[in-house]
Amino acid sequence: MRAIMLYGAWDVQVEDVPDPVLEEPTDAIVRVLQASIGGTDLYLYHTMPRTGPGTPMGREFLGVVEELGSEVRGMKKGDLVVAPFTYQDNTCDFCREGLQTSCRHGGFFNTAQAELIRVPQATGTLITLPVGEDSALLPSLLTLADAYSTGYYAAKQANVNPDTTVTVIGDGAVGLLAVLSASRLGAKRIILKVRHETRTELGNEFGATAVVAEHGADGVARVRELTDGDGTHVVLEAVGYRESFDQALGMVRPGGVISRVGVQYDEAEIGWGVFGRNITLTGGPAPVQAIVDELLPGILDGAVEPGKVFDHTVGLDEVPDGYQAMSRREVLKVLIRP
Amino acid sequence: MRAIMLYGAWDVQVEDVPDPVLEEPTDAIVRVLQASIGGTDLYLYHTMPRTGPGTPMGREFLGVVEELGSEVRGMKKGDLVVAPFTYQDNTCDFCREGLQTSCRHGGFFNTAQAELIRVPQATGTLITLPVGEDSALLPSLLTLADAYSTGYYAAKQANVNPDTTVTVIGDGAVGLLAVLSASRLGAKRIILKVRHETRTELGNEFGATAVVAEHGADGVARVRELTDGDGTHVVLEAVGYRESFDQALGMVRPGGVISRVGVQYDEAEIGWGVFGRNITLTGGPAPVQAIVDELLPGILDGAVEPGKVFDHTVGLDEVPDGYQAMSRREVLKVLIRP
Repeated sequence: MRAIMLYGAWDVQVEDVPDPVLEEPTDAIVRVLQASIGGTDLYLYHTMPRTGPGTPMGREFLGVVEELGSEVRGMKKGDLVVAPFTYQDNTCDFCREGLQTSCRHGGFFNTAQAELIRVPQATGTLITLPVGEDSALLPSLLTLADAYSTGYYAAKQANVNPDTTVTVIGDGAVGLLAVLSASRLGAKRIILKVRHETRTELGNEFGATAVVAEHGADGVARVRELTDGDGTHVVLEAVGYRESFDQALGMVRPGGVISRVGVQYDEAEIGWGVFGRNITLTGGPAPVQAIVDELLPGILDGAVEPGKVFDHTVGLDEVPDGYQAMSRREVLKVLIRP
Repeated sequence: MRAIMLYGAWDVQVEDVPDPVLEEPTDAIVRVLQASIGGTDLYLYHTMPRTGPGTPMGREFLGVVEELGSEVRGMKKGDLVVAPFTYQDNTCDFCREGLQTSCRHGGFFNTAQAELIRVPQATGTLITLPVGEDSALLPSLLTLADAYSTGYYAAKQANVNPDTTVTVIGDGAVGLLAVLSASRLGAKRIILKVRHETRTELGNEFGATAVVAEHGADGVARVRELTDGDGTHVVLEAVGYRESFDQALGMVRPGGVISRVGVQYDEAEIGWGVFGRNITLTGGPAPVQAIVDELLPGILDGAVEPGKVFDHTVGLDEVPDGYQAMSRREVLKVLIRP
C-alpha cells in the first residue's frame, strides 16, 4: 500500500510499504477513507532530526473495517469507524476513570496517513458511525479523532458553562474548535485571540463574540480592556508555546482556569502570579472515548459542523504539498483522501 | 498597647505602639484573645531585609469586639469573633464567586500579634462565634483564620472525595490540617510525607493511613511503591519549596491534581510531564469566608479538634522565643495570649 513517511524536518514522502496485518487477536485492519494532518504531525515536520529510518505519519483517521481479530467485539467487517488519536482497551482502571490517554494497554497512533491501518485494542478504540461512506458528515466526524475532541476536552476541563467568560488563544483548527466547544457548553462571551485576521470569519461562525488580533502584551491588554481589566474566567491555550502561556497568565481572571491543548516548553512561571490569584492550570491529551458521546449527536443532527476547519483536500500523492501549505499557514487544516 | 514588630530576619521585638482607632465607618476594633504564628510570619522572620522602619506582625487572631464603625452590621460590642487572614467586603463580584482573597476592597492582615487590632470591612470579615471567652474550643476556632481553612481549601480545590487517594507533603500545621481535611472529605487513603517522624502521631490522629519519612527521590519512590507504582489522585503540597513541587510531580497519579497551599519559587516544570499525564495544578490563598460554614460545625460539635496543632502557648513577651522555637521546629505551632 501507499503511506506517508517523514525522513526529517520538511521531508515528507509518499512510499510503497507492506500492507499491515493482524498481529494480535485484539487488532483490526481499517481501510482509511479520510485522514488529516494535525498539530503533532506538523510539530514533527518542523523539528524531526534527519537520522534513522524515518517514521510513518498520521494520528487522525476514519475508515471501513476490513479485517477483525478473533477477540474484537462490537463491530463487523464493513462498518464505518473513527478512532481517537490513541488506542486503548477502554476497560482498565485509567479508562474507567475517563483517562483513556493513560490506558495500561494503550498508545498513540502514528500510521494513519496511509491506505490501510492496523488498529490495536480495536474493541476499545474504534467508534462505529451510523452513516454511509458517501456521507457529507465524514469530515466533521473525522474531527472527533483529535481537533474537536481536543478543543472540547480543554473547555470541559476548565468547567466552561453559561456563567463563564472565555478567551481562546490560537486560530488553528483546535483553537477554532475550542471556540465551538465553549459555545456548545454555554459560554456567552468568547474572545478569540488570532494570529491572522483571516481566521476571524470561521471563529465568529463557531461562536466567538470578539476577536483580538494584537500581538504580545498588546493582545493581553486588549483582552483585559474587553473585561473591565479583570481577564476572563477561562483561557483555552491552543498554541503550546511558552509565549502563549505567558499571555494566558495575563488574560486570566483571578480564580480562573488556564486549560492547555499542548505544550512545547518545559518550565514556566507558576509562582505567586499563579498561586496568589488562585489560578488553576489544567488540560492534557484528550481522552476521546470519555467525551465522544457528548460530541457525536451534535454532528449527526447537524447542530455543529466542525469539519469546516478543513479548507484543503488532497490525495496521498499531494500530502507533501499539504504539509507545506499548512506549515506556511496558507491553509487551515488538510483533509487526506487516500 | 503592646504589639509584635519585625525589624529584619531573626529580629522580633515586643513594643509599645499607639492603640488602633476606627479609621473608616466600616472598621471595627477587636481585643485580641488569641493570636498565632503562621507560615507567612515565619517566611518574613527568615527573609526580611534589615531596612526601613520594621513591620508589625500576625495574620491570625480571635477576639472580642471592642468598637464598631457606624456602618458595621451583624455584630455587637462584646461579641466573640474570628477573622480570616484577609479582610473583604464579602459583597463584590469576586466575593460572590467565592474568591474573597481577591476582594475589590480587601487585603491581608499583618497586625494580629497585638493587644488590639483594627479590622477593615468588619461586616464582611468578622465571623461571630457562639461560645464564651473561656471556651476550650478557642484554639480550634483560631485555626479557621488560616491553618485549617488553608488545608481544607487545598483539599476541596483538588476535589478530594471518598474515591480519592491523597498524599500530603509537609508536616507543619497546614500539612497536618490538610490530612484532617482530606479525612473529613472522605478520603480513605491518606499518605503523609513528613520531614521528621515526630509529627507522625498527630498525623495519624488526623487521619493519615501511612507515613513516609524518606527524603527526596526516596520519598517519591516510597509513595509510588505504596500505590502500585501509580501515585495518588491528589497531592496536597503544603511546603511551598520548588523541591516539594518536584516531589509532588513524582507522587501524583496520571489524571490527578496537585493542590498547593503556598509557593516560594517562580518557575517550575509544567511541560509534557504535567500536560502529557493530564495533571491539574490548583490552589491559592484560601477564601475563608467561602468555606467557613463547612468547617465551623465540626469544631463546635467536637467532631474535630484542629487546635491540637498548637503545642506551645506564650504571652506577648515570649513571642520572640516562640518564633525561634517554631523556626527551629522545636514546636509545631505557637499560640499567643496577648
